[in-house]
Amino acid sequence: MNREEGLLIVLSGPSGVGKGTVCKQIRCRQKLQHLKYSVSATTRAPREGEANGVDYFFKQKEEFEDMINNGELLEWAKYVDNYYGTPYSFVQDQLKAGYDVILEIEVQGALQVRKRVGKEGIFIFLVPPNVEELKRRILERASETDESMNRRLKAMEQEMKLIQHYDYCVVNDDIQLTCELVESIVNAEHCKVERNKIKYEQWL
Amino acid sequence: MNREEGLLIVLSGPSGVGKGTVCKQIRCRQKLQHLKYSVSATTRAPREGEANGVDYFFKQKEEFEDMINNGELLEWAKYVDNYYGTPYSFVQDQLKAGYDVILEIEVQGALQVRKRVGKEGIFIFLVPPNVEELKRRILERASETDESMNRRLKAMEQEMKLIQHYDYCVVNDDIQLTCELVESIVNAEHCKVERNKIKYEQWL
Repeated sequence: MNREEGLLIVLSGPSGVGKGTVCKQIRCRQKLQHLKYSVSATTRAPREGEANGVDYFFKQKEEFEDMINNGELLEWAKYVDNYYGTPYSFVQDQLKAGYDVILEIEVQGALQVRKRVGKEGIFIFLVPPNVEELKRRILERASETDESMNRRLKAMEQEMKLIQHYDYCVVNDDIQLTCELVESIVNAEHCKVERNKIKYEQWL
Repeated sequence: MNREEGLLIVLSGPSGVGKGTVCKQIRCRQKLQHLKYSVSATTRAPREGEANGVDYFFKQKEEFEDMINNGELLEWAKYVDNYYGTPYSFVQDQLKAGYDVILEIEVQGALQVRKRVGKEGIFIFLVPPNVEELKRRILERASETDESMNRRLKAMEQEMKLIQHYDYCVVNDDIQLTCELVESIVNAEHCKVERNKIKYEQWL
């Protein structure tokens, strides 16, 4: 009952919930074997030390727009003048090779992925411990005016409502506990009978 | 996003796969909080040191048959001259109090529970690492004739086919790893969005 195809794991949640930190920590802990991180495509220029295919797939604007039009991106968005997106082929190659692939993305991107892959993906929503805590985190990030902060909090509320499209939710209170729960979810998903049918049929 | 109602966890698998050992080990490890073990009812006489309501609920034959007829048992079976079964009320009381309840039972009993509770229960099937290994375990248990052993192996094959009625399967190769996976499954199930709807609606 070994693993066959890998799992696509989408880790998302409202801005400021700590998606990036959780993702980095999971990588550090190395408790999940056979885990790969999705590499995004972007049209922004490489920064010093960034390698193509490692940090990003660096693309020209026209190339990126072709990828959009050809449906080659699992999700994409435009920030200011640059495109960012997730090349589907890279993800699919890893999955077919038996690797789990983790995608750490904003809720809007996660919704695009859900529409594309449906129940094929494992969608995990990180929840802030409480609004006060998130406010504190938003405040820590940058010096914000009251108005800007209110706008962010409203946006966060809207983002929270998207939890209904996810399979799992984890309150990101204690980072180690959050990582353990994400790891548990991945390991549990691999134990699902429906994912092991071929194996146990061979066994019989 | 605290726990509300507990989960009913059914741990089963073919005879000789090591259900009892896994269950005891999970209890020893104490990694799962709020876990209770189901107490069975039986008509057999208490042995020395066994306490009513702790080791078993000891019942008279007529009492037990009334429980069967009133649908008070999640599952039951008769071995030789004695009845054994799982009182539903005890399980329900624990679940309502927020405890997870673990039921370690034979596959036939597990099927009865599945019919009764449907998707409300989490059904975990323990799989022997391989037939040779199970053969070894069956051999270790008692001195068996070839015929008796063949009968057992045939029965095991029949039991294996019941895996299709379960949610999860765990190969019981390394006992610690098996326990970790069962614990992961329970923790992951608690993170399911559908189990936390009331909580997150309150939150919004």
